[in-house]
Amino acid sequence: MKVTILGNNSALAAFGRHTTSQIVQVDDETLFMIDCGEGVQEQIQRFGIRKNKIAYIFISHMHGDHYFGLPGLLNSMNLLGRKAPLTIFCPDELPEIITAIFKAGDSQIQFPLSFCKLSTLNEYLVNTPRFSVRSFPVEHRIACYGFLVEKKSRARKINAAACESYQIPFTHYDALKDGTDYIDEEGNTILNKWLTDDGTAPKKYAFCADTLFTTSFLEAVMGCDTLYHESTYLQVDESKAAMRFHSTAKQAAQFAVLAKTKKLLLGHYSSKYREVRVFEEEARSIFPNTFATIEGITYEV
Amino acid sequence: MKVTILGNNSALAAFGRHTTSQIVQVDDETLFMIDCGEGVQEQIQRFGIRKNKIAYIFISHMHGDHYFGLPGLLNSMNLLGRKAPLTIFCPDELPEIITAIFKAGDSQIQFPLSFCKLSTLNEYLVNTPRFSVRSFPVEHRIACYGFLVEKKSRARKINAAACESYQIPFTHYDALKDGTDYIDEEGNTILNKWLTDDGTAPKKYAFCADTLFTTSFLEAVMGCDTLYHESTYLQVDESKAAMRFHSTAKQAAQFAVLAKTKKLLLGHYSSKYREVRVFEEEARSIFPNTFATIEGITYEV
Repeated sequence: MKVTILGNNSALAAFGRHTTSQIVQVDDETLFMIDCGEGVQEQIQRFGIRKNKIAYIFISHMHGDHYFGLPGLLNSMNLLGRKAPLTIFCPDELPEIITAIFKAGDSQIQFPLSFCKLSTLNEYLVNTPRFSVRSFPVEHRIACYGFLVEKKSRARKINAAACESYQIPFTHYDALKDGTDYIDEEGNTILNKWLTDDGTAPKKYAFCADTLFTTSFLEAVMGCDTLYHESTYLQVDESKAAMRFHSTAKQAAQFAVLAKTKKLLLGHYSSKYREVRVFEEEARSIFPNTFATIEGITYEV
Repeated sequence: MKVTILGNNSALAAFGRHTTSQIVQVDDETLFMIDCGEGVQEQIQRFGIRKNKIAYIFISHMHGDHYFGLPGLLNSMNLLGRKAPLTIFCPDELPEIITAIFKAGDSQIQFPLSFCKLSTLNEYLVNTPRFSVRSFPVEHRIACYGFLVEKKSRARKINAAACESYQIPFTHYDALKDGTDYIDEEGNTILNKWLTDDGTAPKKYAFCADTLFTTSFLEAVMGCDTLYHESTYLQVDESKAAMRFHSTAKQAAQFAVLAKTKKLLLGHYSSKYREVRVFEEEARSIFPNTFATIEGITYEV
């Protein structure tokens, strides 16, 4: 699982940085978009993201720097003849706005588009054998949600060459992945370990959106492999951060320690900072495996 | 009067080109924005446009490539503490959408913002002693308006050094510009021609938005100094242009001839064209003083 940063700035685009958007790649075929700031289409082009593979978009909250790129993205998908379904998980107000925009332009979305509401109950938004996504409420000035993306483990991984030489039918591959042996038509047992390799461990990515420094959602993200926590400010602006329902780099690092994560990604930088390295430096004094995200860079979860 | 191109592409951003937006500079103090495609803020930064001098925004129609940058622009103006009033002339549907967006974000616009409806009657939207703007209906798939910006002539132009040496009070400058002589307290006449130079000629810029090739609005733009006419396609795609309520470069040139304009600007290029020079070449065979607009370039009206 990988995360590509399309936008890492807060409120205003500045110093070449764009407002929030990320692509989470669960596997070769499935991309999630988390938040969708203005100009996201250009970033998608710039970084070679395959737009048609985006199956789900998750919008954390209704501040413009997290969704003003969505109308344009949907419009382009429509004009370019998208056929694949798209599901958008978002706050209640968004579907009405998007509907009004397309109605005003006398345009109809030609591909299957669904809007689903976010849940405060830490329920699954998406749950498949390969991955799941849950939302959890964070603490911002308006209702705001984080997202926990999990890539599930498969106990075993198919060894294609071995399966071919033993002539295992494709229909049995799922059972092999779950660890069962294969018994052929003559009753011979072909051991699972001859046909498969060790599977991949499950991975969890937690995106904590815009939030105060708080432990209120700590449990939801506990033990995740990679944690994205906003760091709009440095610790010197702690009171400003609190007043605006944002966090500092130091607080993000403190949260990463509490959440027992392995890796911390920072973002949502205030436009007052030209360089983002300072956020990384501040956080690393507390949580060394911190990265101040940079647009276009893909981070392993 | 000058026009700076912020976006010159149709529908989709492509090849580094952005969707429609232009800045019309009437004088040193007053900027108009015509249309406001996505990413306009970045273009404003890139080309050093003084955002606070934008007093009026004119939105031609409700297709997203002409206004999806507006919510972000307003949001930024708000966050950056704009104080100056802003008036937006736009189709009826826009104010409601903008209101819903700011309400959903629990944000209030802190500067004086007005929305005014566009008129089909070729009436003045703005009319001051220095400039005026009128809208006129063009022919597109949905209601769409062009804009005629006029910088008015002043008969005479103040010669500051001369006025100072004759000790003319500032309060009389406007009268001087209108050509009157100055009579001082002792009854002496100081001739206008000693105090002023020849004024500037009036200038007219016509922005014809998205439209079919039609003469229905020819009268509204007749004799303008510079005409912007869309050229989404080349003449080889004439039928596609007509079907989609757009024009070709050749048609734009034909219209320029009919309108007796001095200069033709082309734009709103389809994303299928990598190079825009081809539009210029096609139009110049009919109307030689044609320019295929390029983003960031400022054109004299």
